[in-house]
Amino acid sequence: MDRTPSFADTHVSLAHGNGGRRMRELIDAVFARALANAHLDTAADAVAVPLPLHQEVVVTTDSFTVQPIEFPGGNIGSLAVHGIVNDLAVCGARPLYLTLSVILEEGLEIALLRRVIGALAHAARASGVAVVAGDTKVVERGDCDGMYLAMTGIGARPRGTALGLERIRAGDRVLVSGTVGEHGAAVMLARHEFGLHGRLASDAASVLPHAQALMAEPGLRFMRDPTRGGLATVAHEIARGTGLSVHLSEDRIPVGDAVQSVCELLGFDPLYLACEGRLVAVVARESAEAALGRLHRLAPQAQLIGHIGAIGDGPGGVVLETALGGRRMLDELDDDPLPRIC
Amino acid sequence: MDRTPSFADTHVSLAHGNGGRRMRELIDAVFARALANAHLDTAADAVAVPLPLHQEVVVTTDSFTVQPIEFPGGNIGSLAVHGIVNDLAVCGARPLYLTLSVILEEGLEIALLRRVIGALAHAARASGVAVVAGDTKVVERGDCDGMYLAMTGIGARPRGTALGLERIRAGDRVLVSGTVGEHGAAVMLARHEFGLHGRLASDAASVLPHAQALMAEPGLRFMRDPTRGGLATVAHEIARGTGLSVHLSEDRIPVGDAVQSVCELLGFDPLYLACEGRLVAVVARESAEAALGRLHRLAPQAQLIGHIGAIGDGPGGVVLETALGGRRMLDELDDDPLPRIC
Repeated sequence: MDRTPSFADTHVSLAHGNGGRRMRELIDAVFARALANAHLDTAADAVAVPLPLHQEVVVTTDSFTVQPIEFPGGNIGSLAVHGIVNDLAVCGARPLYLTLSVILEEGLEIALLRRVIGALAHAARASGVAVVAGDTKVVERGDCDGMYLAMTGIGARPRGTALGLERIRAGDRVLVSGTVGEHGAAVMLARHEFGLHGRLASDAASVLPHAQALMAEPGLRFMRDPTRGGLATVAHEIARGTGLSVHLSEDRIPVGDAVQSVCELLGFDPLYLACEGRLVAVVARESAEAALGRLHRLAPQAQLIGHIGAIGDGPGGVVLETALGGRRMLDELDDDPLPRIC
Repeated sequence: MDRTPSFADTHVSLAHGNGGRRMRELIDAVFARALANAHLDTAADAVAVPLPLHQEVVVTTDSFTVQPIEFPGGNIGSLAVHGIVNDLAVCGARPLYLTLSVILEEGLEIALLRRVIGALAHAARASGVAVVAGDTKVVERGDCDGMYLAMTGIGARPRGTALGLERIRAGDRVLVSGTVGEHGAAVMLARHEFGLHGRLASDAASVLPHAQALMAEPGLRFMRDPTRGGLATVAHEIARGTGLSVHLSEDRIPVGDAVQSVCELLGFDPLYLACEGRLVAVVARESAEAALGRLHRLAPQAQLIGHIGAIGDGPGGVVLETALGGRRMLDELDDDPLPRIC
């Protein structure tokens, strides 16, 4: 009944946020088509979602303000889906439903919005998850930097799934599913703000297959996807949450050549750069080899990068064991060297 | 373990969004304390939420960009909770869980943020709903107008709840739970942009009790809370979704004196001004009196304001029957006279 056979608007205007005809046309032309699924009803205030009765339901939320909106390897739309899918995945859940809130700046190009929502829809389909509810707001020119997204994910996992910091023990091993820092470095380059150019691609991707593969490993203790603050920040979360030390071996942490070069040029440390498609796992020592084997089938660059130290084993906190046999403490990130990375 | 005995920061800085220590301190000091509940775990990527097995789960999402952030009768925090609670309520659901994403502008006063989150927490408790997951992003000065919120709500309703536009029949009656347009008029005055001042308060509030009261009425067909675009926009949604005409009686629509005066001064129509604490219900003709009685117990200003016309009964669309016995068509809102009302 509400067919919009043609939508000729080229830029977002305040009227696209008015709750009336112009908003409905934008939603029909850009959102409803790209995101179409059996549950999405753009005319309803809320939608019913069937949930598996015998599983535990988990929820997560994030907003996305990445700048630029498009970067090599993705855009804010695919980034949002991967961010939410990964947060659910590392809790042992499969994603089922997404909600999407969009804040648009007056004057934004509709073509850009279409590309973002197209990438978002593609990423959602690839992870088997449906966008079931949405909202669009338009703010005046200058009150937002193009567009911001907020997304909530609902997933389900087997009842009794236990994956918490409290399960981590001294002697456990730390694994990472691939090279670190690509997302941070790619977004930095895409900004051209340091006079550098490059086509380094973000690692933004779903880690759902990796997380599900590790879920089959009885010695799995804990998973997390390193985003803002990078691998070092996840290590600090583990150290703080357990009271144990985290020992990382510098020469085992996979860092791509391009990321390494950018970091050396600009004085960044790749361990603090955001990833958006990597997984850090802590596993029991006796499960480390099997867990790494499972990861390798999906991610050839996965590595065992460190272990959990006992209380009293060194100074606590996060210790980087350098290639030369030295040790240095990895500090917790204090300022924000790269705001709006996600 | 992560106690933050004192949090002395007075303004939001980019470091509060870095994923590290400063962000954790902000979250502990401002969010975790105000929103504390058994499910919220600010250290987790996703949280498990128990859901009633025998009910149907419904989901809704909205973002909030209201300007000013604080206005008589509420602020962006309480507005967000009421907006989400009301979207769930009009679908026949009771709200269970909320997620909260916050986008903050560098330089925002922490005291203002505390007031917003305090009001949000208060509104959530009053509606019996828990904020279970959140996210904080900080954007550079000038890239956001103070703060924007995005909220998703998860609720539950009896299985088989049928409240859709398709249930509406010619002859049904239209009710509204109180005076219209207070929210739009209050926000407009709070902006002082028309040289007008006033302490007109927003109607922002939960309509959950009203919706639940009507759920007990067998002749209930449909409910909606008029927000952006006001009562006229809800009437248009009904007309468009049913193919029937909606007839509203001008002299029965409750409009407060202050709203009427502001509208006359500025040339606005109160029927297009946003409400944030009102409910429009369509009920079978034979249930109208009982339904109005149920509403009156909670909302003395509730009124029967119109009816659904048959196909061929007048020109279709939304017809306003004026106090003088005339008829005029209420157009669908085309531009946005009051952006950032919610």
